[in-house]
Amino acid sequence: MKKNRPEIPRKAIYRLSIYLRCLQRLKGNALRTVSSEALARAAGVKPTQLRKDLAYFGQFGTRGLGYDVEQLSRLITDLLGTNSLQPVLLVGAGNLGRALLAYRGFEPEGFEITAVFDADARQLKNISGRPALPMGRLADYVREHGVRMAILAVPAAAAQEVANSLTAAGVTGLLNFAPVVLEVPDDVTVNNVNLAIELENLSYFIQQ
Amino acid sequence: MKKNRPEIPRKAIYRLSIYLRCLQRLKGNALRTVSSEALARAAGVKPTQLRKDLAYFGQFGTRGLGYDVEQLSRLITDLLGTNSLQPVLLVGAGNLGRALLAYRGFEPEGFEITAVFDADARQLKNISGRPALPMGRLADYVREHGVRMAILAVPAAAAQEVANSLTAAGVTGLLNFAPVVLEVPDDVTVNNVNLAIELENLSYFIQQ
Repeated sequence: MKKNRPEIPRKAIYRLSIYLRCLQRLKGNALRTVSSEALARAAGVKPTQLRKDLAYFGQFGTRGLGYDVEQLSRLITDLLGTNSLQPVLLVGAGNLGRALLAYRGFEPEGFEITAVFDADARQLKNISGRPALPMGRLADYVREHGVRMAILAVPAAAAQEVANSLTAAGVTGLLNFAPVVLEVPDDVTVNNVNLAIELENLSYFIQQ
Repeated sequence: MKKNRPEIPRKAIYRLSIYLRCLQRLKGNALRTVSSEALARAAGVKPTQLRKDLAYFGQFGTRGLGYDVEQLSRLITDLLGTNSLQPVLLVGAGNLGRALLAYRGFEPEGFEITAVFDADARQLKNISGRPALPMGRLADYVREHGVRMAILAVPAAAAQEVANSLTAAGVTGLLNFAPVVLEVPDDVTVNNVNLAIELENLSYFIQQ
C-alpha cells in the first residue's frame, strides 16, 4: 500500500484531523454542504491550504456547491483508519498513565486502551475494567491481539527498552510521553508528547 | 530583549529540553563533564546537531574536555526561564483538566498550576488545594498575579473565546488541548497538544 500513497507532509495529516472535527460540528448543526472557504475558516487555515491538503487524496467538492459534509467526513475517517475502534496498549501505570486512563477522551475518537502494562506489580493493583499485566506478558499480548498502537507513559530510562519490545512484537505506532528520542525501525512511527517540555518551550518564548 | 536573540528554530528549543533532561540524569550519576558525542547519543541526536543547537546561544564546552554538566544545565535552565517556579492557569476542569491536575508531573519541572477556571460552577466543586474560580474572575486573576502561561483544556467551541480573554489580560503562552487552530496576537505563542489527534495521526501512518 505504501507505494501507492503520495508522500504527504505530517502536518497535512494533522490538519485532516482538524477538518474532521469541524465537519463533525457542522454535521451536529445539520449542515449538509460546506464551502471550502467556510470549512477553512472553521479550521483556522487558508482556503488554499485546505484545497491543497485534500488534493493529496483526490478531487472533492463541486465547484459552486462545496463539499458534501457527510461524504468528506467519511473519506477522512477512512484515510485516518478510524472507521473502526482501534485497540491501543498503555505501557506505564504511574501518575501520567493513570491520568490518561482517567481521561478516556480517546474513546469517542475511535481508540480504546485495551490493556495496561507496568514493570512494577504494585502499580497494576488498582486498575479496574481492563487487563493490567506485567511486562513479561507484553509481547504475547501484542501478537495475540494484533495490536498496532501503544502509548508509552514510562520513565525516560525505560522508554527505549519498552519501545524495542513493542516494535519487535509488531507495534508500528508509538505515542511517546517519555522525554527521550526513541530509535525505532523505519516502518514504525513515533509521535512524541511531553507536557512538561511543551510548557518549557512556551516558557522560552514568553521571555522574548 | 527580542531583538538581541537570534531566530532559533522551535525544534531547537524542544531539543534544549531534551538535553537538559539528559544532563540531569548525568548529574544524578555524579558525572561532572560530558563529551558532545556522549550527550548527543543520550539525547538521540547527531553530535553536529547538538553543537549547532548550543551554538545559537554562544560557545560552550572545552575541546577535549567536553561540557561541564552543572554549568550547561544551569545555562539551559536560564534560557528556558525555568530557574524559578512559574505559575500556570488551568482553564477547563472537565475530564482532561482533572487528569492534568492529577498528573502533577509539571511541578518538578518548574511549573505550578496555581488556579483552575471553568464556565460551569459544578465542575469547580471538588477541586481542592488551589483556587477554583468562575470564568468571570479570569482577567482579574491574570492581572493581579502577573500570570503569563495558561493551559486550555476546554471544548473546541469555547477555546477561541477563552484564548481571547487570556491574551487580552496579558497571558502570552498557551498550551492548547482543544482541537482548533487558535488565532492569537503576534506576541503570543501557542503550543498545541491533542492526544486523540496524535493517535489519529499514528493511525494514518500504521496503515502504510
